[in-house]
Amino acid sequence: MITVQEAKQIILSNTQDFGIEEIPFLESDGRILKEDIIADRDFPPFNRVAMDGIAINYRFFQYGVRDFKIEGVQAAGSPQETMENAAHCYEVMTGAVLPNNCDTVIRYEDVSIETLMATVNLSEIKEGQNIHIKGSDKTEGTVLIPKNKQISPADIGVLATVGKATIKVAKLPKVMIVSTGDELVNVTETPEAHQIRRSNVYSLVSLLNELNIPSETAHITDNKEVLKDKIARYLQEYDILLFSGAVSKGKFDYLPEVLDELDVKKLFHRVSQRPGKPFWMGQTDTCKVFAFPGNPVSTFVNCLVYFYPWYKKSVGLTESTQTAILTEDVIFKPNLTYYLQVKLHSEKGQLLATPIKGNGSGDLASLVEANGFIELPQTKEVNFIKGNVYSIIKI
Amino acid sequence: MITVQEAKQIILSNTQDFGIEEIPFLESDGRILKEDIIADRDFPPFNRVAMDGIAINYRFFQYGVRDFKIEGVQAAGSPQETMENAAHCYEVMTGAVLPNNCDTVIRYEDVSIETLMATVNLSEIKEGQNIHIKGSDKTEGTVLIPKNKQISPADIGVLATVGKATIKVAKLPKVMIVSTGDELVNVTETPEAHQIRRSNVYSLVSLLNELNIPSETAHITDNKEVLKDKIARYLQEYDILLFSGAVSKGKFDYLPEVLDELDVKKLFHRVSQRPGKPFWMGQTDTCKVFAFPGNPVSTFVNCLVYFYPWYKKSVGLTESTQTAILTEDVIFKPNLTYYLQVKLHSEKGQLLATPIKGNGSGDLASLVEANGFIELPQTKEVNFIKGNVYSIIKI
Repeated sequence: MITVQEAKQIILSNTQDFGIEEIPFLESDGRILKEDIIADRDFPPFNRVAMDGIAINYRFFQYGVRDFKIEGVQAAGSPQETMENAAHCYEVMTGAVLPNNCDTVIRYEDVSIETLMATVNLSEIKEGQNIHIKGSDKTEGTVLIPKNKQISPADIGVLATVGKATIKVAKLPKVMIVSTGDELVNVTETPEAHQIRRSNVYSLVSLLNELNIPSETAHITDNKEVLKDKIARYLQEYDILLFSGAVSKGKFDYLPEVLDELDVKKLFHRVSQRPGKPFWMGQTDTCKVFAFPGNPVSTFVNCLVYFYPWYKKSVGLTESTQTAILTEDVIFKPNLTYYLQVKLHSEKGQLLATPIKGNGSGDLASLVEANGFIELPQTKEVNFIKGNVYSIIKI
Repeated sequence: MITVQEAKQIILSNTQDFGIEEIPFLESDGRILKEDIIADRDFPPFNRVAMDGIAINYRFFQYGVRDFKIEGVQAAGSPQETMENAAHCYEVMTGAVLPNNCDTVIRYEDVSIETLMATVNLSEIKEGQNIHIKGSDKTEGTVLIPKNKQISPADIGVLATVGKATIKVAKLPKVMIVSTGDELVNVTETPEAHQIRRSNVYSLVSLLNELNIPSETAHITDNKEVLKDKIARYLQEYDILLFSGAVSKGKFDYLPEVLDELDVKKLFHRVSQRPGKPFWMGQTDTCKVFAFPGNPVSTFVNCLVYFYPWYKKSVGLTESTQTAILTEDVIFKPNLTYYLQVKLHSEKGQLLATPIKGNGSGDLASLVEANGFIELPQTKEVNFIKGNVYSIIKI
């Protein structure tokens, strides 16, 4: 049995490259960018009027002129006009190019206009005010969005601005999620007294959706030959296999044996943690196998603790550790890393983690109230003190 | 001009009901549940074996028996067996029903097995150990997931477990996002010197995607008649219209006038905030109109500050305020609520907000580095002090 730290280290040293694909920018929400996005022009691309009002030549204001004859209108979207008489003004609209011979904009709120004359009702203005200077945000050629960033709504706007109608992103892996266990029946069936409905695979589908990864699901009966045949095929067809169940010490827990016979190289089996201890991890040249224990909370925790960071590192995403303050003392005797379900809430700039009373790794229903897990490290101490800070995983 | 608080209060008093629809549970990630989900059976539905090992009758262990003849195997998914001789044991698998006449499970790690005899290598065990008692998590009829919850991966698992193949969720609104501004060209076009590409509508599409709301987009030229014709049609066809641009004081900012002529009832126009001041909000009996200013950061902030909480309240979701600690002094002179873009990061259980240097409401590119806004309240003080706590909006 290895520690959580060792397991994480092994997993993060065995990332996988899924390649790159080009997709329409508007379908790229949440995907991982795989090219630097460069400014194709200056940002803004011209001296841009930043307020509706009039544009003048500051020199005349400075000399005491307050009445300016309106020589024309510069609308947004019109080619740049030229103000012929520097003592005049131009009406200008937000987003328009600043007309030639103008250098300062005064907003309508500070001007009175009668027929073709604008009078400025201010005794002081700043030369160059209300102009968004060409290239002042970014200059042409600057990297606006570096590669390996997860694409956000602001990025979508920038991609549109620079005309990147399609972009290169990390290709999505092909994932199969497999449940085992003869006690399981389908969601639409009414279980017998000794049966329950399949649920772990669907929690996993949903957890992968959060990473924008589509997946398929299958169920395999607890029969060694059937298991072996099907897995042999999945190993060829998929980049990632996630299993739930059949990795512990039960008489029908054939999975580690079958994977070994299929030449899947074991990276480790069993991690000193609760829940999720019997986790089995292995790989072939083309496929990673995450075999999670069948208890629902175990499968859930292991997906968050191992699959999430492994996938993020595989596609190039770096993530910093998040921490929260424990709001209650927690007593935990086993010498294991303890993943405790918590309700995370913000208070005065602090992130607080309040334990949710659960009933062990089989108690899926208690997860409904939780929005994270706190990681209480493996230690000989039994008592985790209220007010201490620990790493968390948000759901 | 009203304050941010007044604007929020007006918006939240004018929510909208989009109705309810029934969808497959596996397509419900992130949607808002509109029915209570009830336990159809006890959780767990039987006395469930929680460890692979042997099941015994505790009385015999208590009397000093350590060797138990193996009478049979109770596999997960098999109907409950009965142990005929109470001095014997049954091999039991995780997830199986506890056999009749057994009351305690000892895991394989603590047992030696030779031919048909199991020897317990422990001097002490707890009566009833390693059994997940019927109904101990939840009893039949309990509300497992209350309505108005946003559906999470754990919920998906619970929905599967109780056999809810389809569920009732809040219906999605029909949304049209409209840009105005003759300076705008399409993403695939090469802009002239005085033009820029459309980007705000795509940021809005992406911001709505984060709420799982699909949307359509359109562009309308700065022509009052065209604007009026198209909006008249959109008001009939959509539940929500989002506009970007044409609400300020420019000569071609026809939108408030056109909306008035189309009998859209104005709720307010202009809010004492930066960015996003010229925000216009109104409604008909069937349609809400959010008309955001055209500067990219203004549109972005107003969508987060107003549309997000309005939508969440409309579908029944309650959200608590999040706060963070400002890491630098900020000087802001205007008597306006200031939405400052920040980088949020976790440190020792605290959420820290570090301002991102931006270049005003036109500077979309600076948002790429931000992952939130901090709300610095409207006040006569100019100085917001490092270490103080303020509300934040995460992106």
